[in-house]
Amino acid sequence: LKRCRLGLLGLGTVGTGLLRLLDRGGEGLCERTGARIEFVRALVRDTGKPRAVEASKLTLEPADIVESSDVDMVVEVMGGIEPARSLILRALAAGKPVVTANKAVLAAHGAEILAASQAAGKPVGFEASVCGGIPLLRAIATGLVAEEVEELVGILNGTSNFVLTRMYQDGLDLGAAVGMAQERGLAEADPTLDLDGSDAAHKLVILAEVAFHTAARFDQIEREGIAGITPTDVKVADEFGYVIKPVAVARKLPEGLDLRVHPALVPFTHALGPVSDEYNAVLVRGHATGETLFYGRGAGSLPTAAAVLSDIVELVRHPDWRIPWDPAKSRPVVRAPGKSRYYLRLPVLDRPGLIGKAGTILGEHDISITHAEARLAEGGEGTGNLMVLTHAAEEEAVERALGEIVGSAILAGDPLSLRILE
Amino acid sequence: LKRCRLGLLGLGTVGTGLLRLLDRGGEGLCERTGARIEFVRALVRDTGKPRAVEASKLTLEPADIVESSDVDMVVEVMGGIEPARSLILRALAAGKPVVTANKAVLAAHGAEILAASQAAGKPVGFEASVCGGIPLLRAIATGLVAEEVEELVGILNGTSNFVLTRMYQDGLDLGAAVGMAQERGLAEADPTLDLDGSDAAHKLVILAEVAFHTAARFDQIEREGIAGITPTDVKVADEFGYVIKPVAVARKLPEGLDLRVHPALVPFTHALGPVSDEYNAVLVRGHATGETLFYGRGAGSLPTAAAVLSDIVELVRHPDWRIPWDPAKSRPVVRAPGKSRYYLRLPVLDRPGLIGKAGTILGEHDISITHAEARLAEGGEGTGNLMVLTHAAEEEAVERALGEIVGSAILAGDPLSLRILE
Repeated sequence: LKRCRLGLLGLGTVGTGLLRLLDRGGEGLCERTGARIEFVRALVRDTGKPRAVEASKLTLEPADIVESSDVDMVVEVMGGIEPARSLILRALAAGKPVVTANKAVLAAHGAEILAASQAAGKPVGFEASVCGGIPLLRAIATGLVAEEVEELVGILNGTSNFVLTRMYQDGLDLGAAVGMAQERGLAEADPTLDLDGSDAAHKLVILAEVAFHTAARFDQIEREGIAGITPTDVKVADEFGYVIKPVAVARKLPEGLDLRVHPALVPFTHALGPVSDEYNAVLVRGHATGETLFYGRGAGSLPTAAAVLSDIVELVRHPDWRIPWDPAKSRPVVRAPGKSRYYLRLPVLDRPGLIGKAGTILGEHDISITHAEARLAEGGEGTGNLMVLTHAAEEEAVERALGEIVGSAILAGDPLSLRILE
Repeated sequence: LKRCRLGLLGLGTVGTGLLRLLDRGGEGLCERTGARIEFVRALVRDTGKPRAVEASKLTLEPADIVESSDVDMVVEVMGGIEPARSLILRALAAGKPVVTANKAVLAAHGAEILAASQAAGKPVGFEASVCGGIPLLRAIATGLVAEEVEELVGILNGTSNFVLTRMYQDGLDLGAAVGMAQERGLAEADPTLDLDGSDAAHKLVILAEVAFHTAARFDQIEREGIAGITPTDVKVADEFGYVIKPVAVARKLPEGLDLRVHPALVPFTHALGPVSDEYNAVLVRGHATGETLFYGRGAGSLPTAAAVLSDIVELVRHPDWRIPWDPAKSRPVVRAPGKSRYYLRLPVLDRPGLIGKAGTILGEHDISITHAEARLAEGGEGTGNLMVLTHAAEEEAVERALGEIVGSAILAGDPLSLRILE
């Protein structure tokens, strides 16, 4: 039986979950994996904090993990950019394979880390960095190795999916739904990275790099958050057969990669329609297998730890294992010129001729309306919303038209535009 | 670059699809896989048939594939039990790794084939044998390696799913829907194995063996086909918020495995509810990751070939690769004593007191009714159906009660009972 002694960087939710899985897995896990996986030591910030782990297995000194002779593999579950990045690089330089669950450091420094991995001849596993418990990266890299992936559409952020689901099912407004997510431990005290699309964009970078065998850049991804969405939008979408979901889209184009994160109206019948609460899902479209969907828990202690453990087992069994990702092959992130149908909400003062005025401006930008409707706000003293559904329109045309509508002084607030997923 | 020369047993739909993927994959595939995968020769039954492959690459002699020195790996895509079984065993004995898409031979002779693989020290890949293009076995065996799978619920047979979907969406009766499936190449001239649950049971054996790390026996699986389902059942199910789906269920119990294949009423909101037409899906429930769903094309030339190719790549890159499946560890197939809610349809002669009589018999077997309703057949001259929805009831109690109802001479035809999936 091979032996693999683990050193953990961090002992928070994921690290603790990993220890639980190792305890529970016991002999069965040894048998299935052909290896005895042992926890040796964890780097923590405070050795005094009460934990289920004996004090002799905790250290404040990074070298006890990344450069210690009794650690065979380093598991980075501390999160954040630094010191995670430096410690991963030190572990590789010391000849240790690394497993990480850290999407932020991979999205920002993936190329550097992969180059260090190649230079050291030691692999880096990062299944847990995208969609936690869903064995997604491995499925794409090995199960779909014959596939030319053309498009990925996914729900990558569980927090914003939970928030929009609660707005939809319980009629909450955004603030109350965020509060509920925080109560349940699904959102941080500062939920900005979840709600503004940054977290999903981190994962989209990694996913696109694996699916398209190329490098992508986080800072080039177009991101729209969900902060502007109101109960009215959720309700109107529902009336038209849609549910608003926080989606991430990656397309391979001849001129580069089109990567974007934004909320969208998803038809009830779409594969992503039933993906609710904190669940994640990714739909992969390719030339050979058509549509394949992966759905499951994208976060949480045990699901993420299960993904970490699957990487540990893979690297023990196949020390040469790697996801074919070549950071040297970079493709620019581009904006595809494609068209979408749109849902627009224009907060207006209730005056005659508004639909005519807005419709005229939209028409001048070649945007056809399929439905327009004014709704007065309850007790809104003459204010309300003008809802518009459009035929397929150019993104830039919609932006220009909205700019002109804003300039025309008929609005009582910021307009909202959401794409409709087909 | 490693080189892998393929010998194909069979050159039908899947074999031809594989050649197309190899042609198209070209240099990109070599780069991603670190190997040059070449087609050398295929065993066919008729070398005279017009094909896209040059005649010099066809043979009628099995030894040219399984025992030839210029073949590094054997790909079995001929289907059926014999000669597939013998040729796989000969290939292994000749020291060649084997990739097979053949669920029938694995369900019937998996233990023998795996034992031969272990004896020869050469792996057998069989990703394509279950759910074609969905990278399911690999995901369970490696991605969910840390998981203790508790239950699998899936739609494993695309043909019967297509048939039920057309009955639901187009109002067809079973015969017409089967005819449509045959026209589209989704059903054989004799569709028995698809419709009676045998094909799904083949796949369930393999899936359960991989998920539960044990051996199972095809002939012990309880199978119910979809032949008794009428447009009335589909319509009534819809009215109550269900869609009828051909499901396969595997549960791990202390006393063994509970494996069954049967149509069931699935709630619209269930993860399997939106899985329509020829698509397959499998929901995996486990202690760590909770629910994970895999969805995609379960059959067809390119999807199945993509799964075959993923195995080829895996075995080239990792010659020691294997799915941890120990045929020596057998668990009996058992019937779990659990309860289900049921939908019952009793074809009756339209006489007073029927609901009372049927209800009394059901009640005597501890089966509570939540809804009972008699519907006259249009132009049915006094015949009709009595539909019953029950609370959770023991399977054996339902069988005994139905037997008694049949014996009570109130029926005008065979009753139908379908479980309701929660």
